[in-house]
Amino acid sequence: MDVLSNHPIWSQSAARVLARCDQLAKCSESPANLTRTFLSPAMAQANEMVANWMSEATMTPRVDELGNLIGHYGAREKSPTAPKLLFGSHLDTVPNAGKYDGMLGVLLAIEVVSLLQGQHLPFAVEVIGFSEEEGVRYKTPYLGSRAIAGTFDSYLLGLLDSNGISMSQALHQFGLPPEAWQNARYDSAGIIGYLEAHIEQGPLLEALDAPLGIVTDIVGQSRLQLRFMGQSGHAGTLPMQWRRDALVATSEWILAVESFGNVTDGLMATVGTINVGPNTSNVVPGETICSLDVRHANDAVRETAVDGLLAMASRIAAQRGIGFEVLARSNQNAVPMDSRLRSLLQRACDKTGVHAPEMVSGAGHDAAVMATLCPCAMLFLRTPGGASHCPEEAVLVDDVALALEAMHSFLLSIARETGEHFESPTL
Amino acid sequence: MDVLSNHPIWSQSAARVLARCDQLAKCSESPANLTRTFLSPAMAQANEMVANWMSEATMTPRVDELGNLIGHYGAREKSPTAPKLLFGSHLDTVPNAGKYDGMLGVLLAIEVVSLLQGQHLPFAVEVIGFSEEEGVRYKTPYLGSRAIAGTFDSYLLGLLDSNGISMSQALHQFGLPPEAWQNARYDSAGIIGYLEAHIEQGPLLEALDAPLGIVTDIVGQSRLQLRFMGQSGHAGTLPMQWRRDALVATSEWILAVESFGNVTDGLMATVGTINVGPNTSNVVPGETICSLDVRHANDAVRETAVDGLLAMASRIAAQRGIGFEVLARSNQNAVPMDSRLRSLLQRACDKTGVHAPEMVSGAGHDAAVMATLCPCAMLFLRTPGGASHCPEEAVLVDDVALALEAMHSFLLSIARETGEHFESPTL
Repeated sequence: MDVLSNHPIWSQSAARVLARCDQLAKCSESPANLTRTFLSPAMAQANEMVANWMSEATMTPRVDELGNLIGHYGAREKSPTAPKLLFGSHLDTVPNAGKYDGMLGVLLAIEVVSLLQGQHLPFAVEVIGFSEEEGVRYKTPYLGSRAIAGTFDSYLLGLLDSNGISMSQALHQFGLPPEAWQNARYDSAGIIGYLEAHIEQGPLLEALDAPLGIVTDIVGQSRLQLRFMGQSGHAGTLPMQWRRDALVATSEWILAVESFGNVTDGLMATVGTINVGPNTSNVVPGETICSLDVRHANDAVRETAVDGLLAMASRIAAQRGIGFEVLARSNQNAVPMDSRLRSLLQRACDKTGVHAPEMVSGAGHDAAVMATLCPCAMLFLRTPGGASHCPEEAVLVDDVALALEAMHSFLLSIARETGEHFESPTL
Repeated sequence: MDVLSNHPIWSQSAARVLARCDQLAKCSESPANLTRTFLSPAMAQANEMVANWMSEATMTPRVDELGNLIGHYGAREKSPTAPKLLFGSHLDTVPNAGKYDGMLGVLLAIEVVSLLQGQHLPFAVEVIGFSEEEGVRYKTPYLGSRAIAGTFDSYLLGLLDSNGISMSQALHQFGLPPEAWQNARYDSAGIIGYLEAHIEQGPLLEALDAPLGIVTDIVGQSRLQLRFMGQSGHAGTLPMQWRRDALVATSEWILAVESFGNVTDGLMATVGTINVGPNTSNVVPGETICSLDVRHANDAVRETAVDGLLAMASRIAAQRGIGFEVLARSNQNAVPMDSRLRSLLQRACDKTGVHAPEMVSGAGHDAAVMATLCPCAMLFLRTPGGASHCPEEAVLVDDVALALEAMHSFLLSIARETGEHFESPTL
């Protein structure tokens, strides 16, 4: 396949993918920015637009019971039991989003299928545009992939959005039968695997001067809510030495969290929120409630870190004579990517002539859910400036071209494992 | 006067004052708690109640152009130019207030006048219940005392409350002529001085086991609003070492503020508010806005402290590669109490047989405004538990009795300076 490297076909395809990202970004709930949440009219519009592109790529599009858009490209031998290779990512966005997070992976996959130029493989290829990954509308992420992977639960249908509309009602209004949600589930038998391409959403690839990266693990995550309980008092009459200032205690702990994160390889530890009571300039703060977000690819490292950070909080609070408690705590384990698919992807990247470093994903992705169904791999594209979840989100056309080349090569390498030989795209 | 010490008359009077505090606390805008703001119906009710008590004490009550309630007890020789001695404090409250802050000083003064039992002095005595000290309704404190002291300004009449009602409209609705505000002003000629009794609102007297304290200075105060400007980022994808976390920087500075306050005698330095942007658990904080409140009896010490704390903030921000700016800054100089009145008050306290330690007031009071008009002194009463501006606010009946005895003695000592001799209350 080396003959294809640097061939104009990849850059032409990349330009088409990016033009489609621009067009898709017009499907929005807001005229001012890109916001597209689960089961919104903008989602219906986006599904229709992407379904047309799937059809152009000679795929058969359908919308499943949870609103996932699925393009089917049949196996050479028409059989309902033909194995399937899945590609995809999500079509929903955060509020005021960029044009690439999620969507780019779907449009790349469609382009890769179109580059088969009608040649069929010993397995079917499906491109999935997941209906919901960000969790904006129901404050619960991965609804689309959970339905397909079989980890959706019926209680989710009862969740209410901020307008009091249940998910069940919303599905119905979207034209989908809520009672049929279980039909969205895939049978793992015969699924070869799932590949998701996604922007990195971080600065590592840019710093390494690498256009592409290969995900080894999607990090595990602990999220906690903590309360420090001191004693409020008059800022003018309560002497410094007698204070039990919850904000000062929290500040001491925030610095400890940073130091701990700095010395623990691969750990991300973030205090992202703090709310002070009473939050009045002339009152010594009596209480704070703050968040802690801890991530690591190794669950044991993460759990040890959380225990250590809580012990620090407890010690700091005790030294200052104030109370401390954990209000809420949730844990999500790390998800390793499949080693066989990873090495196929590594070889596919090598063929493009660039080194794709291995890296962990600090953000969650549909691939973490799909890994409960089938072997998964993820390809990251460099994010200029590290910006994501904002209109400044960007990708480089050359990186998109390389990603297409690698994904195409990955697809053919799986076909080749079956003993087949396939033509390159017509040049 | 020593014969009076420990005499039941003081404790009977103290009980009456406390019973009136209870009764006055029923004039509230809220049935659930005590809240009485400037020009509210509750204020009209309170003025009427207190005016009746003034009348019982043979004073002539009136409400001035800014709603201050003033009880006049004439000089022995009826003359419009007779000198005047002023007592008082404020009748408004913070929301969800205690029963003593402000009100106690007014009711103590009325009781002291009633203990004269109709004897008149070579000077008039006036008890002022200031209409507004807390600054709740128009976010500007001391409106009543500013009108009397002559530091009110006409632009204040245009301020709007949270319902969009201007102070001018509110005065009019209260039955007062807004255009006549300048008539509230007192001429400093012939005013002997002003004495304000107030709860300490802090823990010092309790710690010293002292029922009464004498204020040497009302501290100066600097209030600032600061912004730290870092860079927000994804909590899972932005490595610790590359972060420009505004909250971590602010935390480092908050600890520096505490340390600086701890080592600087008499300094109070408080960060009471912090607001984080975007304040989302999985986003590295990009920006914080926080307050700084610095107080000291010595203006030079305070100003040097503020400069030092800002330099620290600037250094910490620079080391972390983040921006820092001061958004707002206001200064109020310290106000010393009058040395002659202070020593008369000290002697009056001595006569009660308890030592009244000298102390600075970390909170502002009407006396700080009245000091621009005439010599001022302040008597503090112990605050059990140090609680103030809350329903837990308390005073001890024995402390109230001692305060009455000291105030009565103070009043007579001023009369005695004119060569007069006055009878003790009839026992």
